[in-house]
Amino acid sequence: MTYQAPVDDIMHVLKSAVGLDDLIERNFYDDLDADTIRAIMEEAGRFGSEVLSPLNSEGDHKPSALNGGKVTTPPGWNEAYQQFTAAGWSALPGPQQYGGQGLPEIVSMAVSEIWNAANLSFGLCPLLTQGAIGALEAGGSDVLKETYLPKLVSGEWTGTMNLTEPQAGSDLAGIKTRAVPQDDGTYRIFGTKIFITYGEHELSGNIIHLVLARLPDAPPGTRGISLFLVPKFIVNDDGSLGERNDVTCTGLEHKLGIHGSPTCVMTFGEQDGAIGFLVGDENRGLNCMFIMMNAARLAVGVQGVAVAERATQHAVAYAEERRQGRSPQNRDEMVPIIQHADIRRMLLAMKAMTQASRAICLVTAREFDLSNRAATPEEREQAAARAALLTPVAKAFSTDIGCEVASLGVQVHGGMGFIEETGAAQYYRDARILPIYEGTNGIQAIDLVTRKLPLGEGRVMKAYLAELKQIVEAVSASNQPEFGAMAKRLEEAVTALTEASIWMGEQLGQDPQKALAGATTYLRLFGITAGGCYLAKGALAAARDGTQSSPPVAIARFFAEQIATTAPGLALTVTAGSDAVLGLEPTALSA
Amino acid sequence: MTYQAPVDDIMHVLKSAVGLDDLIERNFYDDLDADTIRAIMEEAGRFGSEVLSPLNSEGDHKPSALNGGKVTTPPGWNEAYQQFTAAGWSALPGPQQYGGQGLPEIVSMAVSEIWNAANLSFGLCPLLTQGAIGALEAGGSDVLKETYLPKLVSGEWTGTMNLTEPQAGSDLAGIKTRAVPQDDGTYRIFGTKIFITYGEHELSGNIIHLVLARLPDAPPGTRGISLFLVPKFIVNDDGSLGERNDVTCTGLEHKLGIHGSPTCVMTFGEQDGAIGFLVGDENRGLNCMFIMMNAARLAVGVQGVAVAERATQHAVAYAEERRQGRSPQNRDEMVPIIQHADIRRMLLAMKAMTQASRAICLVTAREFDLSNRAATPEEREQAAARAALLTPVAKAFSTDIGCEVASLGVQVHGGMGFIEETGAAQYYRDARILPIYEGTNGIQAIDLVTRKLPLGEGRVMKAYLAELKQIVEAVSASNQPEFGAMAKRLEEAVTALTEASIWMGEQLGQDPQKALAGATTYLRLFGITAGGCYLAKGALAAARDGTQSSPPVAIARFFAEQIATTAPGLALTVTAGSDAVLGLEPTALSA
Repeated sequence: MTYQAPVDDIMHVLKSAVGLDDLIERNFYDDLDADTIRAIMEEAGRFGSEVLSPLNSEGDHKPSALNGGKVTTPPGWNEAYQQFTAAGWSALPGPQQYGGQGLPEIVSMAVSEIWNAANLSFGLCPLLTQGAIGALEAGGSDVLKETYLPKLVSGEWTGTMNLTEPQAGSDLAGIKTRAVPQDDGTYRIFGTKIFITYGEHELSGNIIHLVLARLPDAPPGTRGISLFLVPKFIVNDDGSLGERNDVTCTGLEHKLGIHGSPTCVMTFGEQDGAIGFLVGDENRGLNCMFIMMNAARLAVGVQGVAVAERATQHAVAYAEERRQGRSPQNRDEMVPIIQHADIRRMLLAMKAMTQASRAICLVTAREFDLSNRAATPEEREQAAARAALLTPVAKAFSTDIGCEVASLGVQVHGGMGFIEETGAAQYYRDARILPIYEGTNGIQAIDLVTRKLPLGEGRVMKAYLAELKQIVEAVSASNQPEFGAMAKRLEEAVTALTEASIWMGEQLGQDPQKALAGATTYLRLFGITAGGCYLAKGALAAARDGTQSSPPVAIARFFAEQIATTAPGLALTVTAGSDAVLGLEPTALSA
Repeated sequence: MTYQAPVDDIMHVLKSAVGLDDLIERNFYDDLDADTIRAIMEEAGRFGSEVLSPLNSEGDHKPSALNGGKVTTPPGWNEAYQQFTAAGWSALPGPQQYGGQGLPEIVSMAVSEIWNAANLSFGLCPLLTQGAIGALEAGGSDVLKETYLPKLVSGEWTGTMNLTEPQAGSDLAGIKTRAVPQDDGTYRIFGTKIFITYGEHELSGNIIHLVLARLPDAPPGTRGISLFLVPKFIVNDDGSLGERNDVTCTGLEHKLGIHGSPTCVMTFGEQDGAIGFLVGDENRGLNCMFIMMNAARLAVGVQGVAVAERATQHAVAYAEERRQGRSPQNRDEMVPIIQHADIRRMLLAMKAMTQASRAICLVTAREFDLSNRAATPEEREQAAARAALLTPVAKAFSTDIGCEVASLGVQVHGGMGFIEETGAAQYYRDARILPIYEGTNGIQAIDLVTRKLPLGEGRVMKAYLAELKQIVEAVSASNQPEFGAMAKRLEEAVTALTEASIWMGEQLGQDPQKALAGATTYLRLFGITAGGCYLAKGALAAARDGTQSSPPVAIARFFAEQIATTAPGLALTVTAGSDAVLGLEPTALSA
């Protein structure tokens, strides 16, 4: 099945939940207008459908392979990547100063959804390069920026993030990779990194590794970690490529999914040490890394949306074609299964959850944009805080949704869903990495509860809740019969989220373990409430346009009446269930 | 990781939720006692750990393969199967008249959990044979029974179920395989069946296919389907094996999981037609098939429990060993991740959901036993009705849980969970078939709502609700501080299930589409309520033993306070959400 970019759905979110027209009117987006954004999306959609989508299953069946230190990507990958950069897609989000088009995050993320829906394994390569660009922009010296950014932005070179080591996954304090200062101001890097996405491949002329390592006299823990740029090939002063650096791919992982994307073991300094350049200050490497990781976390959330969209399209197409069973309207012959109530329920759930997480991600992207583009420092700070609040929700909620929707997609296919050739199973396998990498969803929940809720002494969350409440009031006032119980269900959800948030605030001071015990459920409640409200904004927009019977209204109603109904129960789980989590001694679990 | 049979957990369910002591006292189980049952379980556990479990990952990596019509199972499979039958495990549930040990369903299902946890792909072979035995017992002539049952019971021969055809999956009305009557009273079968588990292999001397097909003059639809026995080798009058029958394996599916189990395309009658023998009456084949499918549905539910148990053991072992992060108690060094609140939440959820679905399955098994063993016809009928009511819940709820627990298992492993060598990913892939085969979980929900709730004009369900209410009252009266809010949460769940059941009853008369729209959510609500109550029975038993701080209490409390909390929201989704499911025209979904 060929993927079709859901341009209407994306534009609908941008216009309703994100408030695109207002943002354009307020001149945040230079000379961009909605028509241009739609045109970009359609063009990206064509590239996704015609070039990337056909390679998706190919990449699954013929994974990236390692031979003598060289990684070969799946057939067609290289040609597609050259086309991708030649068409200027790499440069779309890059800073204009270094040859990029400087398009805002909302456009970058919308287009990123298209790449990743068309081909999740392929989409990871530009995603990681984008992360490296962000870290360099944030912490690199002028020389580093001038040397590396233009070619990373154009996509001629690609970038990687080297954090994880066997003993240091979620806990970066355990990093052991060493960096030894040299007389010429460079460093020599020694150590092994694992789970390095696109750590080695033949798509680009050079690969720029951003590597966390420790200086000899660094303090222990996370305050003794520095960030280094380690190019695969040393770059000469004239910009040409020099010697091969002492960094090699020594292994590829055999994974459940995203087979096309090479997940590398990278060995630094098997000989004299890999030459590295410090990015940012010594021992402050995590600061740059976190700037980059926040952007990457949103991008991974968008991957969740992407795989959900792809799985939904696949399932809808199958359900329209596959005939089984009768319907009350048609007792004489088998009907397409899309007519059965339970199949409709599943497809609507897929549609609604996809669109809700898309809205959360694009609203988060807007806040990133405003944090750079708003007129006053105060507004920029406010937007940055809002972006910080929403990022863990965008990442974790959307990637959980990605897995759930992909699983529903398998179910819609029945027995055929379990057969690899059908394609539904690939989304189910591919999606499963998303709640894990770029910080597990458990880590996201901890981040949300322990770092983000306390922002501005709770005022950031309070303001957000007030905004959700306003949406609910508008829905209630609009009072369209097509809205059903939307206002009531969302009001209950916002109340539930408010109560759980207050409880969280109290626990953080009194008994943080209780807050942690409820963190994941709280994040789910947050996502459901926010997602439901954003879809309701979409329904309000449709009602204003006089299209109350349109899919956006039906989907918003479905979400409110079928999914947001869980919100009060989730709040109860958070606020009254922590003793149940913490009561049993962990040792008793293995008995 | 080696699997260890959870004998204590199984015995706990048998003693509390199932009421084993009472059943033994009332003489339902002949001379069986609890100690004997435990000894059987321990012996089965040893076989599972030592013989089947080590082959589980082998079967995943080296799938069954087809060469020239012959299927070779994974390395070690054949030896294991010979040991399995030699040790008498095949014969354990079989009828004594034909050489079986005639052990009750509760023992058979508990032992079946062990085989399937140790090796899901292997466990399918005896599971299907058991189904064939059931169909033959129900509908076979004396000659057929005497010819085939002894060797199927001993496991010398194995059995298959041939229902699905490319155009006839969930809807058996579409079956096209033909059966042509012969002058000698046999039939010739022509057609192609797909998704035939263990349709061909080298484990047994003969394979006995039970095949749905149509007679030439059969009425259309499901009332024109007959059941035939088609042996791979014709059996001579003296019991020896004669000619190869005209049935061949012409393809193997390439699947997401259960790679060890061969899923065959079976072609009947490429030459003169496969010789078949009628089982039961002409055109009444589905009657026998449904007897067999009900038993098989429970067995598939048990597979859900099995894979959940296995995934849980794997995750607990990893969480005890893997060190990342600090704890409030230990800031100096990395602690085993099992000490982190969110990991504990996940592991407890895995434990609690596994034990809850185990209880539902074993209670259902008890009802099957009572339907055969109770003293009066009235009691037997009552038990049969209860078994019929619970079967779709046992199948669908437990297999959904199997997938959810396996997914949590991947998550507990973090990045390692996505690497195939770790093993967690295999459970995630293997489990995914369970909500699909033996009737998709959507079909189970329709069965529950449209056929089971109306049983006895609703009295069967009413009596069941009364029983759940009694459990809640006992929990409430017991009033142990260790129970937390267990009674309150379960009371809310039973109330929610009661309301949703009443609503379902009304809709079935007025607007069946509305009932169908809520069927899956209703089944989930049913499972959560029943599971929570059975775990509470376990907690009550522990309290009576004076072990209120034991895992069974903690797990029951966790289920009530963390999972049963969703019940009121689910009821609301069922009773007030159907318009949202049915409102949008299906065609609008593809736009």
